[in-house]
Amino acid sequence: MLTVESRPLTAAGHLEIGGCDAVALAAEYGTPLYVLDEGRIRERCRTWRQAFESRYPSVDVEYAGKAFLCLAMARLVDEEGLNLDVASAGELYTALQAGFPPARLVLHGNNKSRLELEMAVGAGVGRIVVDNLAELDLLAGVAATLPAAGRPPQEVLIRVIPGVDPHTHRRIRTGQVDTKFGLSLTSGAALDAVRQAVGTPGLLFTGIHGHVGSNLHDATAHLQALEAMLDFAVAIRDETGLNVEELNLGGGLGVPYLPGESVLPVDRFAAALTEALVEGLAVRHLPQPRLLLEPGRAIVAEAGVTLYTVGAIKDVPVPEAPGTRRYVAVDGGMSDNPRPQLYDAVYTAFLANRAGETPDTEVRIAGKHCETDVLIGSVAVPDPRPGDLLAVPVTGAYTYAMASNYNRLPRPAVVFARDGAARLVVRRETLEDLIRNDA
Amino acid sequence: MLTVESRPLTAAGHLEIGGCDAVALAAEYGTPLYVLDEGRIRERCRTWRQAFESRYPSVDVEYAGKAFLCLAMARLVDEEGLNLDVASAGELYTALQAGFPPARLVLHGNNKSRLELEMAVGAGVGRIVVDNLAELDLLAGVAATLPAAGRPPQEVLIRVIPGVDPHTHRRIRTGQVDTKFGLSLTSGAALDAVRQAVGTPGLLFTGIHGHVGSNLHDATAHLQALEAMLDFAVAIRDETGLNVEELNLGGGLGVPYLPGESVLPVDRFAAALTEALVEGLAVRHLPQPRLLLEPGRAIVAEAGVTLYTVGAIKDVPVPEAPGTRRYVAVDGGMSDNPRPQLYDAVYTAFLANRAGETPDTEVRIAGKHCETDVLIGSVAVPDPRPGDLLAVPVTGAYTYAMASNYNRLPRPAVVFARDGAARLVVRRETLEDLIRNDA
Repeated sequence: MLTVESRPLTAAGHLEIGGCDAVALAAEYGTPLYVLDEGRIRERCRTWRQAFESRYPSVDVEYAGKAFLCLAMARLVDEEGLNLDVASAGELYTALQAGFPPARLVLHGNNKSRLELEMAVGAGVGRIVVDNLAELDLLAGVAATLPAAGRPPQEVLIRVIPGVDPHTHRRIRTGQVDTKFGLSLTSGAALDAVRQAVGTPGLLFTGIHGHVGSNLHDATAHLQALEAMLDFAVAIRDETGLNVEELNLGGGLGVPYLPGESVLPVDRFAAALTEALVEGLAVRHLPQPRLLLEPGRAIVAEAGVTLYTVGAIKDVPVPEAPGTRRYVAVDGGMSDNPRPQLYDAVYTAFLANRAGETPDTEVRIAGKHCETDVLIGSVAVPDPRPGDLLAVPVTGAYTYAMASNYNRLPRPAVVFARDGAARLVVRRETLEDLIRNDA
Repeated sequence: MLTVESRPLTAAGHLEIGGCDAVALAAEYGTPLYVLDEGRIRERCRTWRQAFESRYPSVDVEYAGKAFLCLAMARLVDEEGLNLDVASAGELYTALQAGFPPARLVLHGNNKSRLELEMAVGAGVGRIVVDNLAELDLLAGVAATLPAAGRPPQEVLIRVIPGVDPHTHRRIRTGQVDTKFGLSLTSGAALDAVRQAVGTPGLLFTGIHGHVGSNLHDATAHLQALEAMLDFAVAIRDETGLNVEELNLGGGLGVPYLPGESVLPVDRFAAALTEALVEGLAVRHLPQPRLLLEPGRAIVAEAGVTLYTVGAIKDVPVPEAPGTRRYVAVDGGMSDNPRPQLYDAVYTAFLANRAGETPDTEVRIAGKHCETDVLIGSVAVPDPRPGDLLAVPVTGAYTYAMASNYNRLPRPAVVFARDGAARLVVRRETLEDLIRNDA
């Protein structure tokens, strides 16, 4: 299985992904191309479920659709028995069009519109995570008709600010005190929201949600947030007499993007969280709530490889040793993967058509945009030639999801590869698509 | 006219843009909405032409389509008599579909594909700016059939690395020595390319191109690049006996994004460049080439306003004085304007529906994405309420052009407003659009 540390090869020395020859995939579907190892995604879904379900009696693992979503992905998540976390009308629409059971959907968002709330309540979305008091008012209006319609009340969780500062890129921190997400524990706003939710006809308060940030390498921040949330559960019990029935710890576990990078395996992550949870509940004399988790990146990132065709190669004199830099340009760039520009994200790469050769040449990988869109600052590959196929692994998350048409580049196709067979799950955009909405 | 310093109001105290009431535009077309003052764009086109044409005998101003392009924009650029700079098959396709005269198109790119070159040569694109030696070989193959077809040879310019380090964000520097763009003057690569172009049937070498970077506030870097390029023109004359007939100084002049920000007016920019050019030519005994310029941002940025609807507002306790931060969430964010995330770009904002009121409340503007997508870190507005219309000026460039569907948000509509009338130039994406290419 392809990982950032190792890669399976075909007899021809090509990268193999999902049992398919990457060179054949590129020939069939063109480049740039997002290839996802479908078996790997499914394996990650099962690993997550198993890691938590084997340790705690009541768990829902919810895939965070923002990382990568399309109809096929929603169906896969359904088949693997995970819930699906959606954060906009568009994500909700995609899930519903895929036939995802609404009761297993969770609606997120710091600024849900009335339309989004109506759409969610109308569809029968299982849970809505309420971010703020204004939203609670809005939702109360939307859900007010449920009892008269003979429908059960809308389950809601209250999103709180755990007040934990995780060590990750500032753009993907969310758990710190100064954040747009959720309600303050210290100011009393979160408790006000719980009281209000409990007293609102059409709403059923079931629990609390906290998310500390993204791409974290260990459980430290999660464990801190857990304690704050358990303390809040005590406050809720003391103030309202109600027990928190659902405890949603959000997502945030990272993946290794580079060889040698160390990220806590999900099994140890689950052990740490469930042990602390059981102990924290016992100490506080709280009953066991249902535990909810929302991995996105950790499900899908490592399953993805982006394939590019190498184009222009040039040696540019630079002041630093060795005096020359070899620029290798590919046929994509920041439009299909903005993460290097957005987060200084680092990736490795190799040649998919010469995957067994020794990486003896230090190069810089650049995109084809009218911008200094360095995809990889420095990476060793076998001396590349125009027409070579460059593979960038660990690109399954936040690539297609964040892709743009900058410089009017059509967005690449997405292919699922599994057991030697490939299927197109998102078609490549055409030039015609670029002006489809022009008047 | 709306500028970052001043804004015209309707009798109702609403923002007026292109003679239209911004509140009425938002009601008709929805939010988020990109509104561009069409008269302002046209005025900028004329100002650029006038500034250079009044000072130098032979000038082409070429609009850099990467900043903002759609069918309507290409037609506007044509009507104003500017050339159009395209940097991909998609930009070229858009221009051709708009009926833009191919002879006034310029094709750019650091990694043009054979397909792009075939498309450009086939369409009769006026100029191709060759970035590297491999591209020159590729283009030679594509253009080889032109003479036999009775067509004139393809005009080419050679892109050089001016070796100038402009003071701008590192992602939009391009003129420095260590860059993916162009050919080195010092290594002899640029001169090799000229020799090769001159000796290639089907190609007509006409000149050289250099671009130093984007959003520069004065002409310093351009003037340095100009000297380097004139020295290179001497080298070309000495080596080949040919005169550089076209000198393309690229784009790069910035705009003020914030009140009080000082950017050299185009008139003074033109004066500085043309004076230095005339003197630099005289000193070197060079004949006057045609001068080409490629403004993008400077044409379109200030004409654009993005309108958002204010949603959730919350006061969050923070450690810093005054102890609370007011978060104001809008219905868009990094998907419609990634520049704050990409370049730490700063913007101001005001309430379009209460544009005459005193901005007495310091707030942070956040987007609606599942990410810490702060649109504006701190700005004073009249105490905002849900439903208010927030206007972010100077968003005409690199917003729609770089927009994504992150969190599956449909991309906003684009409206041109002029003389009190508005017309839709790009329709808002629908939820159906989001799964149009899903298999």
